[in-house]
Amino acid sequence: AGNVPLPLTQANARRICTLAQATVPVYAGCPRPLLRPLTTAEAVHGSSGLADGVELPEPTVALQTQHGVDFLIETLMTAPQPVTLAMLGPLTNLAVALVKQPQILEHIQEVVIMGGAITYGNVTPAAEFNFYTDPHAAKVVFESGAKLTLFTLDVTHQTLTTPARLAALRALGPVGQTAAALLDFYGTCDRSRFGLDGAPLHDPCVVAYLLDPDLFTYRQVNVTIDAESHLNLGRSLVDWWGVSPAPANTQVAGTVNADGFYTLLTQRLSRL
Amino acid sequence: AGNVPLPLTQANARRICTLAQATVPVYAGCPRPLLRPLTTAEAVHGSSGLADGVELPEPTVALQTQHGVDFLIETLMTAPQPVTLAMLGPLTNLAVALVKQPQILEHIQEVVIMGGAITYGNVTPAAEFNFYTDPHAAKVVFESGAKLTLFTLDVTHQTLTTPARLAALRALGPVGQTAAALLDFYGTCDRSRFGLDGAPLHDPCVVAYLLDPDLFTYRQVNVTIDAESHLNLGRSLVDWWGVSPAPANTQVAGTVNADGFYTLLTQRLSRL
Amino acid sequence: AGNVPLPLTQANARRICTLAQATVPVYAGCPRPLLRPLTTAEAVHGSSGLADGVELPEPTVALQTQHGVDFLIETLMTAPQPVTLAMLGPLTNLAVALVKQPQILEHIQEVVIMGGAITYGNVTPAAEFNFYTDPHAAKVVFESGAKLTLFTLDVTHQTLTTPARLAALRALGPVGQTAAALLDFYGTCDRSRFGLDGAPLHDPCVVAYLLDPDLFTYRQVNVTIDAESHLNLGRSLVDWWGVSPAPANTQVAGTVNADGFYTLLTQRLSRL
Amino acid sequence: AGNVPLPLTQANARRICTLAQATVPVYAGCPRPLLRPLTTAEAVHGSSGLADGVELPEPTVALQTQHGVDFLIETLMTAPQPVTLAMLGPLTNLAVALVKQPQILEHIQEVVIMGGAITYGNVTPAAEFNFYTDPHAAKVVFESGAKLTLFTLDVTHQTLTTPARLAALRALGPVGQTAAALLDFYGTCDRSRFGLDGAPLHDPCVVAYLLDPDLFTYRQVNVTIDAESHLNLGRSLVDWWGVSPAPANTQVAGTVNADGFYTLLTQRLSRL
Repeated sequence: AGNVPLPLTQANARRICTLAQATVPVYAGCPRPLLRPLTTAEAVHGSSGLADGVELPEPTVALQTQHGVDFLIETLMTAPQPVTLAMLGPLTNLAVALVKQPQILEHIQEVVIMGGAITYGNVTPAAEFNFYTDPHAAKVVFESGAKLTLFTLDVTHQTLTTPARLAALRALGPVGQTAAALLDFYGTCDRSRFGLDGAPLHDPCVVAYLLDPDLFTYRQVNVTIDAESHLNLGRSLVDWWGVSPAPANTQVAGTVNADGFYTLLTQRLSRL
Repeated sequence: AGNVPLPLTQANARRICTLAQATVPVYAGCPRPLLRPLTTAEAVHGSSGLADGVELPEPTVALQTQHGVDFLIETLMTAPQPVTLAMLGPLTNLAVALVKQPQILEHIQEVVIMGGAITYGNVTPAAEFNFYTDPHAAKVVFESGAKLTLFTLDVTHQTLTTPARLAALRALGPVGQTAAALLDFYGTCDRSRFGLDGAPLHDPCVVAYLLDPDLFTYRQVNVTIDAESHLNLGRSLVDWWGVSPAPANTQVAGTVNADGFYTLLTQRLSRL
Repeated sequence: AGNVPLPLTQANARRICTLAQATVPVYAGCPRPLLRPLTTAEAVHGSSGLADGVELPEPTVALQTQHGVDFLIETLMTAPQPVTLAMLGPLTNLAVALVKQPQILEHIQEVVIMGGAITYGNVTPAAEFNFYTDPHAAKVVFESGAKLTLFTLDVTHQTLTTPARLAALRALGPVGQTAAALLDFYGTCDRSRFGLDGAPLHDPCVVAYLLDPDLFTYRQVNVTIDAESHLNLGRSLVDWWGVSPAPANTQVAGTVNADGFYTLLTQRLSRL
Repeated sequence: AGNVPLPLTQANARRICTLAQATVPVYAGCPRPLLRPLTTAEAVHGSSGLADGVELPEPTVALQTQHGVDFLIETLMTAPQPVTLAMLGPLTNLAVALVKQPQILEHIQEVVIMGGAITYGNVTPAAEFNFYTDPHAAKVVFESGAKLTLFTLDVTHQTLTTPARLAALRALGPVGQTAAALLDFYGTCDRSRFGLDGAPLHDPCVVAYLLDPDLFTYRQVNVTIDAESHLNLGRSLVDWWGVSPAPANTQVAGTVNADGFYTLLTQRLSRL
């Protein structure tokens, strides 16, 4: 569950796999956050959760029957070597897995997360959508002791679409054209609401990091999630200057080579 | 997990089953609370979690291999009719089950809970052990919409052991003698710490209610769990006078017929 | 400011002085709490703040021109010996005086306070009116280091009016008749809302303590005010069992000799 | 009270007046924050509160005997026209004045404040010194309804000293040389702790704004102070993107013309 309720998000995941001709199994996880009521973001992502008006294929990939939490636990516990997790939404499933079976921690190589905001949130003045939706899950993950890398709004907002970048995507053919159409829809809200010059590519930062970590600069600092307060609920406190005694627990991305990022993105989409 | 870590509590449960010659399957659930570090209570319950110095048989019943959360979900989802749950510890497992598979709610008849305190807590001035250990899980359960019945410290402290009541247990034979020995150990702390005249029987209130609800008086009121504050973390706010607009969600026990309660307890233990 | 806004409360104080032929100077203090918006209680005390329908004389005593906070500071700083303060409303004025001039602390003998609740609040399930109205001021006072004595709802609710007690007041003449009429009005809400058998005499407990402290039993314990949380805002945490390491800072009344209390009250009113 | 205890800060204010040959009356206000224990910053400002090792004249100006809060109230209540307040430290005195006599609000033209942080605090990861020292006072001021202008660390950190800028000050003579010496001392901590290229001139931003508001850009937005939470205590939430429904209450400075700022500063110091 995330930008829209679970029945839509799992179908959207399968539609994208069908479009990309990717044979990736899709599992549905928890349909609700740990404690908070589900917050959705139809205003940004459309009632479908992707982009209203953009045609996507019906999914040809079936939904897996196993629960996403159990798939996660089973995969980690039987993995021949530690696994890196790419987290692109609220952290509910990973948190539930950590509570249910804490031993999975030994089988995690790294958790790479898109979430949080240092300066301004996009749901409240303090909080970004993924962490606001399930601040308690974010707290479980950031206190877990796992090796963490974080991409906040402060870095993802450095990866804005521009007309030239969108044109390069459109030139790739059907997949690139659909990607550009999705970004057009999605950028409308960001441009009007946040006065941005284009759409920030939040989640692709995680994937770009996994492919080419040199695209970003980092600092190893303490990150703490506020899961208690009202005004700052879901805020990620990033101790960039080391003013608190709390030890560093996260590699936080500071800046991105945006041109290199779009070159990588375009290259990879051209293969589909 | 609860008064002591999970490896001890699951073995203790099996020891008691062995002593009582009960063939009840025992499952291990989550070894930690949702968010808080595990709080244990060796000062009250001894390093073993039951009573130091009281001999209990080695367990002859094996631990089930299924995770307690999955047993709970599977049992509820396949039950021919709604099931009543007796909750005697922190509510972590039920909360995780509700997050993982919210449909179990339709298969729950009632959740009967020992936990919370109205006047004084026993871990902090505000909070009772079960709710303090996992206040977030308690919040999930009290906000779930399930039919709830609650036995707080305010009622369980009306069920104190007395020499006559303990003597009646001892007269029952080996099981009653072990029960009295466990209560002797356990009452030591309550007498010295809380100035009580005997040991309160917290968890048996839940079982007594299921056998004979007329032993208690009740009021249907709103109960809200504080899972945010520092001073009142884990406190159960019981709106006895209806001063808040929040709707009633819990049947809270007010008083107990303590003599009737001990008569029932003694009768039932005499059958073992 | 308190049960009704300041222009009414200062006039009411002067009306009562006129009725009782008492030449006590009356000062107006702060018209608002430290941080919270002013909460008033017209539903309990009538739109006038005393009792709708009860005739009180126009005040013949003028309001002093000095601000109540400055009167408090000046009186304490120039007192030949330490002074005992009887606090019957929100603690705003004393808190502002302590912030403005902390040296007054050395001139305070004892602060005797009506406020707080252990089991149930009367404004929220957690908080009593005086502390809920200005929880931050209450926190300042309880952390000040002054010698404190506290009368919570748990003890004031043991001083209920009964028909016989009210009849004894009415037999005293005009002042007693007015007192009984005020209590009749005021008890209506308590009887209907809290199911009490009569009206509790909150503030007179403070005065009774100053005249005859043996009317009450006490325990020396830690009291902490929750001025941060949402659910428990304004709650007084009373550590009756000493479960927290916080040192005792308050003498809290536990029980009252209610008959002795009413005898004292009737005697004193008979002198007016 | 502020960077060091009140006896030092009032003497420092008089020393600076003596150095600058300014006949400004100096009043001492509250020696402590509303609720929190006094936080001081000797690590940044030296044990004297200005700069260890820099010689300042003994004060020739006497401390006024009136309390700062009463001076503030009296001045405002008798002012022929509304007054603009320049607030360079914790907001305790203004908050106490607003609680004691709310009518002063009608006599305030504008409150110009140095405080708060949007991205990173300098005392905690979330909070700047002035607001962290007395978050409750900051909350009183920001909720007062007064016209507010705010200079946070995000803008003051754009006004860094450089060797050329310090050289220009030194060339002014004794006053400029003392100013440069104070900044040298004070910049040491900022350079080592925050990795800044020089010392930010926090409080001069307020004065520069009053002399030449065109040096800054602004946005009219909502600012809310977190005076409840633990992790984000004292944080100023600045709703730059208007994501919350709370109405705008503050003009927040976004950027500064740093060269123009230093030109103005140097001009003004040259007159002393």
